[in-house]
Amino acid sequence: MNDRNLLQRAIKIAEEGIIDGNGPFGAVITRGGKIIAEAVNKVVLSVDPTAHAEILAIRRASEVMKTHNLADCVIYASCEPCPMCLGAIYWSGIRKVVYASDRNEAAASGFSDSQIYNEIALDPAKRKIMFIRHNDAGGEEVFRKWDKFENRIPY
Amino acid sequence: MNDRNLLQRAIKIAEEGIIDGNGPFGAVITRGGKIIAEAVNKVVLSVDPTAHAEILAIRRASEVMKTHNLADCVIYASCEPCPMCLGAIYWSGIRKVVYASDRNEAAASGFSDSQIYNEIALDPAKRKIMFIRHNDAGGEEVFRKWDKFENRIPY
Repeated sequence: MNDRNLLQRAIKIAEEGIIDGNGPFGAVITRGGKIIAEAVNKVVLSVDPTAHAEILAIRRASEVMKTHNLADCVIYASCEPCPMCLGAIYWSGIRKVVYASDRNEAAASGFSDSQIYNEIALDPAKRKIMFIRHNDAGGEEVFRKWDKFENRIPY
Repeated sequence: MNDRNLLQRAIKIAEEGIIDGNGPFGAVITRGGKIIAEAVNKVVLSVDPTAHAEILAIRRASEVMKTHNLADCVIYASCEPCPMCLGAIYWSGIRKVVYASDRNEAAASGFSDSQIYNEIALDPAKRKIMFIRHNDAGGEEVFRKWDKFENRIPY
């Protein structure tokens, strides 16, 4: 299957999932052109705000591949990944994203993707959410302990 | 417990978790000043690139509260949330974040938080990851079906 077919698979599961109570988003992850994981948005059904299609597909792909590093995988998403999912894609090591709709189309159907992109770009002090930093609370000690820990596994 | 005590709890679990193989990050979520969830970074141990402290704490808090909307909760994080976790915080409805270290301190210990913040702000076409959009693949049909679906539960 080519990129377009795989993207259409992500779109198809998103469309079909709506009637079951899922959010209107689907994602498919491939390795070597073969589907290894797919998922739809389960936020409401799973009572989990992190249960976006891409997050669930990445978690499944990691389970299948037995590694948190999906560097040789491609993700196909019915809509442009939101900042949470984009962050997850970077952490997973995935290097190619194919998508159909974008953040503005998601916004037109009531989803906050675009707003969250705008917020993330702001200085923490200027966001709508209150951000308070205590830079003298001992946070840096955690990293000093990590740096000295011989058995640490960096990622 | 006040903000500082709760933040120090997040720092303490992060520090203590290192020796067990967890990543050096901790998060605590409260409601009405009472801890309802806490977690450390389990990326390596859980073989899950999304298993950051904040994501796991949000998932647990949602489970405890039986809702994906944590609008009356506060999150305390040993380090500034990465873009993935920040996205999750917005989706969860949390309106206050208290943190200690920041993205630059995380970078100094080998974590990509700061790089990912920089990437997210770029136009998809200019990022290090390849982004390909097929805006004629039928993606908008998913939202049209969603808009027409009478039993949809927006979030």
